[in-house]
Amino acid sequence: MATYLITGSSRGLGLELVTQLAALPSAQVGRIFATTRSEPSAALTNLVDGSSGRVVRVELDTCDKTSVTNASTEVAKILHADDTGLDVLINNAGTMPVTPDGIETMDNLTETFQANVTATHHVIAAFLPLLRKGSQQKVFNISTTLGSMTMAPRYSIMPVPAYKVSKAALNMLTVQYALSLEKEGFTFITISPGWLRTDMGNMFGIEADLPVAAGASAVLEAVHKYGKEDNGKYYNIRVAGWEKNEGLNQYDGLSPPW
Amino acid sequence: MATYLITGSSRGLGLELVTQLAALPSAQVGRIFATTRSEPSAALTNLVDGSSGRVVRVELDTCDKTSVTNASTEVAKILHADDTGLDVLINNAGTMPVTPDGIETMDNLTETFQANVTATHHVIAAFLPLLRKGSQQKVFNISTTLGSMTMAPRYSIMPVPAYKVSKAALNMLTVQYALSLEKEGFTFITISPGWLRTDMGNMFGIEADLPVAAGASAVLEAVHKYGKEDNGKYYNIRVAGWEKNEGLNQYDGLSPPW
Repeated sequence: MATYLITGSSRGLGLELVTQLAALPSAQVGRIFATTRSEPSAALTNLVDGSSGRVVRVELDTCDKTSVTNASTEVAKILHADDTGLDVLINNAGTMPVTPDGIETMDNLTETFQANVTATHHVIAAFLPLLRKGSQQKVFNISTTLGSMTMAPRYSIMPVPAYKVSKAALNMLTVQYALSLEKEGFTFITISPGWLRTDMGNMFGIEADLPVAAGASAVLEAVHKYGKEDNGKYYNIRVAGWEKNEGLNQYDGLSPPW
Repeated sequence: MATYLITGSSRGLGLELVTQLAALPSAQVGRIFATTRSEPSAALTNLVDGSSGRVVRVELDTCDKTSVTNASTEVAKILHADDTGLDVLINNAGTMPVTPDGIETMDNLTETFQANVTATHHVIAAFLPLLRKGSQQKVFNISTTLGSMTMAPRYSIMPVPAYKVSKAALNMLTVQYALSLEKEGFTFITISPGWLRTDMGNMFGIEADLPVAAGASAVLEAVHKYGKEDNGKYYNIRVAGWEKNEGLNQYDGLSPPW
């Protein structure tokens, strides 16, 4: 019975991860903490209301250290009462602002880095004590192959340089945490969920590859599958029938080049 | 007769780059802009004073956008009077704060990212108009193999996670600029100068590999050698006799893995 915390759970991939976890048997999945920066969406509220207390909505603005601390205190109280720790942390909250007029006009690098990297660092650091009390010590950071230096030419048409720079940095943050906490048995993974039909995925005006449910399902498959021997690795999700996709994104379950 | 601008020129690698450039024949190297955040060091002042106006000290706090703009205006005036552009920009200014108690205590990520990545972006953007008027369109970002995800295990003993994360991001910034300005004939390179006996290099209490002069000389060799066909690449410097170094750093002139 594993416990989960997912940031950015009001919509998109985060909401779908919570939804799918809540549909699993309680012998497999225990408490699910669904965090949101502002008021939860109607969809998340419905999910919480129908979960008999299993899905707990927690206010957490990842960019606000006080909010991160408050959220960890709130989660700690509940887990303490349950006499358990946090098993899996999925850092899903993030931002992807567009820079339409060329990289030299990029004016959102600081905020994007703050939201996608520093915020993730603060969340990990705040929940480490609870993760140490858990039985799995798994941290999954939602990344993207747009954060791959090697693959950058493929994505040069997508005008989101701050996002790309921040995700390369998030990949390194993941690697640094992995090396630092390896001896304690942690598993830190940075994973690309592919191109999903979320608000973010639909920003470019062309239909994204996959329904969000397919992406979330593949992310959870990875969460269940990968362990200590995969610590510090970068993965694509694996989606049946899409392993040999020749489009922008891969769904082969392999490690993209950094 | 190429013109150069080097940030962080009061000491260390920046000062040595300026010194070596100023020793080259004026048929090869023209105006050298040596920028410093605060008052120039005595060594830089001496160099400026003995250069007959060839080495120009410019105040430039890379972390302050107004200062970056003012510096570009000042440089533009001089280059305009010389009827030339800026040929080579070397982004050398940077910071490497230590996090001694484990990555979860890292409290300097935002400032380090600001100094090593956002500041570099602002400098590049501000000097692009002058680089476009130049004849070489070369931008070299001083990076490090500590910014390589692949090589991270090798450097895990060095407690500078914010530096490592920021340099991975700087590598991606370099790649993004390279792709964005490729059609205009630009060359963006991210280069590791190796482990030099500078104030930064000596921080770990063990002697660094090379005297700063050897590192600067190899960086300048790379600046002269690499062109458009190398745009977007990541390089080690090449130092004769050190090509097969088995220590932490490589001096083989090859591209480290990202």
